Amino acid sequence: MSHIAIIGCGLVGRAWAIVFARAGREVVLWDAAAGEGEAAIARIERNFADLAAAGLVAQPAEALRRIRIAPDLATALAGAAYAQESVFEEVETKRQIFRAIDACIGPETAVGSSSSGIPASAFTEEIACRARCLIAHPVNPPYLIPVVELVPAPWTDRATVQRVRALMESVGQAPVELTREIEGFIINRLQGVLLMEAWRLAEEGYASVADIDRTVTDGLGLRWSFLGPFETIDLNAPGGVADYARRLGALYCRIAASRDVHQPWGSELIAEVERQRRAILPQSQLAERGEWRDRRLMALAVHKRDAER
Amino acid sequence: MSHIAIIGCGLVGRAWAIVFARAGREVVLWDAAAGEGEAAIARIERNFADLAAAGLVAQPAEALRRIRIAPDLATALAGAAYAQESVFEEVETKRQIFRAIDACIGPETAVGSSSSGIPASAFTEEIACRARCLIAHPVNPPYLIPVVELVPAPWTDRATVQRVRALMESVGQAPVELTREIEGFIINRLQGVLLMEAWRLAEEGYASVADIDRTVTDGLGLRWSFLGPFETIDLNAPGGVADYARRLGALYCRIAASRDVHQPWGSELIAEVERQRRAILPQSQLAERGEWRDRRLMALAVHKRDAER
Repeated sequence: MSHIAIIGCGLVGRAWAIVFARAGREVVLWDAAAGEGEAAIARIERNFADLAAAGLVAQPAEALRRIRIAPDLATALAGAAYAQESVFEEVETKRQIFRAIDACIGPETAVGSSSSGIPASAFTEEIACRARCLIAHPVNPPYLIPVVELVPAPWTDRATVQRVRALMESVGQAPVELTREIEGFIINRLQGVLLMEAWRLAEEGYASVADIDRTVTDGLGLRWSFLGPFETIDLNAPGGVADYARRLGALYCRIAASRDVHQPWGSELIAEVERQRRAILPQSQLAERGEWRDRRLMALAVHKRDAER
Repeated sequence: MSHIAIIGCGLVGRAWAIVFARAGREVVLWDAAAGEGEAAIARIERNFADLAAAGLVAQPAEALRRIRIAPDLATALAGAAYAQESVFEEVETKRQIFRAIDACIGPETAVGSSSSGIPASAFTEEIACRARCLIAHPVNPPYLIPVVELVPAPWTDRATVQRVRALMESVGQAPVELTREIEGFIINRLQGVLLMEAWRLAEEGYASVADIDRTVTDGLGLRWSFLGPFETIDLNAPGGVADYARRLGALYCRIAASRDVHQPWGSELIAEVERQRRAILPQSQLAERGEWRDRRLMALAVHKRDAER
């Protein structure tokens, strides 16, 4: 099997390296900044130690040895089955790296961009290899959260989408395939509509930020950790999803229609939400709580793996 | 400690009986239909056996013995600390039962309605005990999903809300307090906006129903099973929630604004979603999958309890 190239070794690129190396693939890192590859490998080693302690990687030393650093972009790409691009999310930066990739890529390599919002059509239109480029958007960190959105540009080959889907499945990810581009793709659209309603409810004083969070952590989110929104309602009416839609569709339509004015979150609202969050969690403990989140995600990954057996 | 009255012994009333009896409270059941109390106890015994096998109730036989049946509504309510009403969700039915409750309730009893959508103001306005009535809306089954929405009518006593909140916390539930009524309360509003977007994405053919579900089960829902939407974004920007709002608020506002036309789900769309769901899960397997969901919820409850220790 030919190797996987990781283009950009920041937080997202490193996490992708872990995904591929853990699954047995050879991984070649490249970053425009000197020393970034070495720094990435040191951090990946610590991540592998945590994953091994949680039972989420069997042979961390072997996995780490599958990752090496390329001296330049052309070497990283030479003979690669796939390249995952994770540079800074800014359209001109994306355009530049895709032009550089285009200049040295072989016909055997597909390229996925980790872009969480900018569609591939914004930065691949004018390059020769554009039919083999698409968005492969992860949720961080992809070695704990398996979903990856595959979003083709209008000129992306159907075969490329299928190939990248198969690759992602082969390394244990859960690819989701969009038929075409849309702002926010699916994940950020679903998260976005829920966030907009949550912020409005806080703004109008219906409940505290902590209580709104609790409706999800002790309610909706429990089912959603293993049942999607469609399967949830399919199981929530005696006759399944169509029965549910006839019973409750009108209610949800009224709720959606009650928010016809869409305004940005104002500075007073942002200050109030921040005040409530900082009362729950001081700024100085944000990083520590982020580490707690990652431990909880690891424990949940183990739980789900065992529950699905 | 005085007892808890359960008014209406269907699926929801039975689940509430389990919540209170498991936590050590005496429970008295009443149902307008003859034989319903006895049938409920037989089903509760089976539920307790399942919960005991999962490690979610320590002494199922003792818990079951704390549940008894009252011959009439007045006996069920006499001396009760709290009554949980779970009759059929239809406004006239709710009005009738609250009139009947009003006729025999003592001054020491608060009443929570399990109503998932009808606000308390629609059926408690004209009764004498209205200051001690509110909505206490669970997600089914409340012995596995702890959230409960407390929604006061305009005339509900502040002290009643506080008392019911303390009671719910004392039996292991996770109460969420609304300051006033709003259609759908919080849980169904948050679920509703996410469902509306999911259905629209399916209608417009951006992805299959299965792939839209996967963005939640293998992505968003993992964090949401232990992090609320506000805490999720608070940990997703270096400077916390205000930093996140400044970076991404405009994107989410554009996404929300892109759905300014709110139309009901049409019959063709419902048929298409049903077609996709039935291809994944035949109608004949809905009940079995519901039992699988309940087993997964039990396993998740054990996982969360252990992870939070």
